[in-house]
Amino acid sequence: MNYRMTFHTIGLVIRYAALSLSAPAFIEIINLDGRSLSCILPYVYAMLILIVPSVFLTSKPPEDKTIRANEGIIVVGVSWIVMALAGALPFIFSGTLGVIDAIFESTSGFTTTGASVIADVESISKGLRFWRCLMHFMGGMGVLMFMLAVMPNVSAGFMHVMKFESTGTQPGKLVARVRYTARILYLIYTLLMVIEFLVLLIGGVEAFDSICIALSTAGTGGFANLNASIAGYNSLFVEIVVMLFMFLFGVNFTMYFLILIKRFKEVLKSEELRYYILILSVAIISVALLLINTYGNFFTALRYSGFQILAFSSTTGFLTADVSAWPTMAQVILVFIMCMGACAGSTGGGFKVSRMLLLGKGALATTRNIKSNRSVRMIKMDGKAVSPTLMLNVYGYFVIYVIIAIIGTLLISIDGFDFTSNFTVTLSCLNNVGPALGQFGDGNLLAYGGLSKIILSIIMLIGRLEIFPILLLFSPKTWKND
Amino acid sequence: MNYRMTFHTIGLVIRYAALSLSAPAFIEIINLDGRSLSCILPYVYAMLILIVPSVFLTSKPPEDKTIRANEGIIVVGVSWIVMALAGALPFIFSGTLGVIDAIFESTSGFTTTGASVIADVESISKGLRFWRCLMHFMGGMGVLMFMLAVMPNVSAGFMHVMKFESTGTQPGKLVARVRYTARILYLIYTLLMVIEFLVLLIGGVEAFDSICIALSTAGTGGFANLNASIAGYNSLFVEIVVMLFMFLFGVNFTMYFLILIKRFKEVLKSEELRYYILILSVAIISVALLLINTYGNFFTALRYSGFQILAFSSTTGFLTADVSAWPTMAQVILVFIMCMGACAGSTGGGFKVSRMLLLGKGALATTRNIKSNRSVRMIKMDGKAVSPTLMLNVYGYFVIYVIIAIIGTLLISIDGFDFTSNFTVTLSCLNNVGPALGQFGDGNLLAYGGLSKIILSIIMLIGRLEIFPILLLFSPKTWKND
Repeated sequence: MNYRMTFHTIGLVIRYAALSLSAPAFIEIINLDGRSLSCILPYVYAMLILIVPSVFLTSKPPEDKTIRANEGIIVVGVSWIVMALAGALPFIFSGTLGVIDAIFESTSGFTTTGASVIADVESISKGLRFWRCLMHFMGGMGVLMFMLAVMPNVSAGFMHVMKFESTGTQPGKLVARVRYTARILYLIYTLLMVIEFLVLLIGGVEAFDSICIALSTAGTGGFANLNASIAGYNSLFVEIVVMLFMFLFGVNFTMYFLILIKRFKEVLKSEELRYYILILSVAIISVALLLINTYGNFFTALRYSGFQILAFSSTTGFLTADVSAWPTMAQVILVFIMCMGACAGSTGGGFKVSRMLLLGKGALATTRNIKSNRSVRMIKMDGKAVSPTLMLNVYGYFVIYVIIAIIGTLLISIDGFDFTSNFTVTLSCLNNVGPALGQFGDGNLLAYGGLSKIILSIIMLIGRLEIFPILLLFSPKTWKND
Repeated sequence: MNYRMTFHTIGLVIRYAALSLSAPAFIEIINLDGRSLSCILPYVYAMLILIVPSVFLTSKPPEDKTIRANEGIIVVGVSWIVMALAGALPFIFSGTLGVIDAIFESTSGFTTTGASVIADVESISKGLRFWRCLMHFMGGMGVLMFMLAVMPNVSAGFMHVMKFESTGTQPGKLVARVRYTARILYLIYTLLMVIEFLVLLIGGVEAFDSICIALSTAGTGGFANLNASIAGYNSLFVEIVVMLFMFLFGVNFTMYFLILIKRFKEVLKSEELRYYILILSVAIISVALLLINTYGNFFTALRYSGFQILAFSSTTGFLTADVSAWPTMAQVILVFIMCMGACAGSTGGGFKVSRMLLLGKGALATTRNIKSNRSVRMIKMDGKAVSPTLMLNVYGYFVIYVIIAIIGTLLISIDGFDFTSNFTVTLSCLNNVGPALGQFGDGNLLAYGGLSKIILSIIMLIGRLEIFPILLLFSPKTWKND
């Protein structure tokens, strides 16, 4: 264990958290509306608290800059927990939320879940509203990914950090050096976000709302400035723009890189992308057909079906409809879609389309093998053979995913809500979506007790970091000096 | 494909179905209670209808008696569908149920699910009540298992038939010859059932009720003679006897064979049995603690917790309490317990404890492997290494199990019931349990539409035959001449 390097990196993350709090403070200043300047004090206090450990941890740069798998796990796991706690500070110091609620809100922000415990979002300050959306943006592509992109020297060992923070089965390096991969990904990410912001702005949406929606969509988060989410804008234009970008941020960012370097053929060949589009199309049309009675005609039904399916599949969780009032069959499709989630290597959460494809192919191979006792059939993805080790990892991931869903549902049922609510809230948090079914169709989980909120916060972190960094953080072996 | 031998065997199964219908007819005769003898006509008609294809299929014994995996799949799959249809006939001819309802009731009988569509069980004839419980007994150990035990000459190829009809990961032969294995298993099965019958009889339960309860328990079915299930007897004695035997019929029958041949050590070493007992104990005590408020004190809570947990884990589905009124956390435990099911090689359904153990061990290995890129760790069960092929099969089984649960929930939600009901009813049918949560706590599914009942019947068959025989029946390759 290279403790020095590990905690030096964590110190840098804390500094990044402190610096990022200047953004909502700035938003408060330009939106004073007669309030005194003391409204920025919560951010100042938070920054001061964070600067102390940051300075302490980063005071002496370590000589040994080695980062191995164990260090990667600890850096990612601890950094995310620290960010979740740091993000809670302005909510606490401004008196907006209690400690547990603030930690829940902040975890929901960084993990890009978008479930909220704020009763009336429209009543909180613009600074805090901006901070909620900025957390989505910071968490979407990854806290450490940003640092890798801006840090002056990044050793090859940081590959482990990148691996444990990004999503999907085979988090790939785009180019040989970790630092350039991080830069390219963050650039594409920021560019897409800025385009969405500009489109909304040009379309007549207020600048503040435009930037908040763009930040939320980019991270596939789901925090909105209005209590009614995107429905509150009552604008087909906003819906279509958000829909389009929810789809785009759910695609593997490697695709955009391939487009930039003009390797279009590889994009068209991607099995995951093709199935993602196919499954979404089938789901949107099916749900639209089921909603004809609810909305009177197919096209209105298609509008609401399309938005909600894209919001759940990209795990953004913006809403334009009350899904808990939809026919049960449409709700079941939504639950499936939110568990599936988006593509690997996107900012979306969920189980990921590629993993689901591998499971499907594995199941098909098992069915074929069951008759003969022949050796196991080879599974292929994108034309290439999938290694048995990867298959076993995907299967193991699925099992742990199900176990966490069961344990979560069991534990939060202590508050006495019905089974549908507890089960779908747990799935919603595990997949970083936000809204659920039952009593929590709007993704507001204020009604849950403190213990449940802590459990759900842990589940959101487990979901965002794809299980292992958080689980392994509690294994003594990870911390062992070797 | 040896079509001749395949259909000859299926012909024998149909003859067995026809013969077995004489039992409920006999029950009608000795319980006439002033009715005319015409009350046995439904059984006579059913037998006549079945004898025709049976005679036709078995007229000429085939020369080639080869049974390979493909033939095994078809024999098992088709036989079970035929039995489900045959079992429906007396309900139809007696005017008790419509065609779809009768097929559902019969499928629920043979698959030992115990979900019913009869509104008032106490109003139907004793013959039909007996037939429901006899179907449980016939289906529990297996329709073909009985035939293998009584058939004069059984070729080694029938191993495939036994494999596809019995439960668990590695359906083992007890002794070298298939026929003797079948005889030993059926003998243990019948003996245990007779003991339960005698204990109940000596304890003062009416003979008819004693035999029906014993038949239902043995098959881990759950059909009861009273609308209130076992609660209707209002007797702690009956509850304790049934509880004990529900546990016993959920244990791998190989254990009883090992006890008979005095290899006690191997019984004690069985990981599955130890975990089964451990998990049940933890579940019973946890649920009892959660029920103290509901029942006033711990011991009454323990009585109801113990019965329901054993009923759900053995997948019998007898009831002594209204579980849908229990606290949500207790309900979540019940759902988990019913999905886990009983031990492999028992008459119980569900996913099976051994499979769950393998999944758990696999997940643990994955977590350990994720850090290092070393080769996959070996998984052990009962001290022996588990082959990667078996692991892949268990994983594949799990994936298909989840897919079927999702598709089932989706399809039956067409009737507009709530998510909890649809989801737990699907799980209940897939695991051959009977009762569910939500609106179907008593396992009476009369309210569902015809389409849903057909889908649930297919799911019950898929569950009882552990997925593959039914799925592969629809694969053209299975039917191919090779």
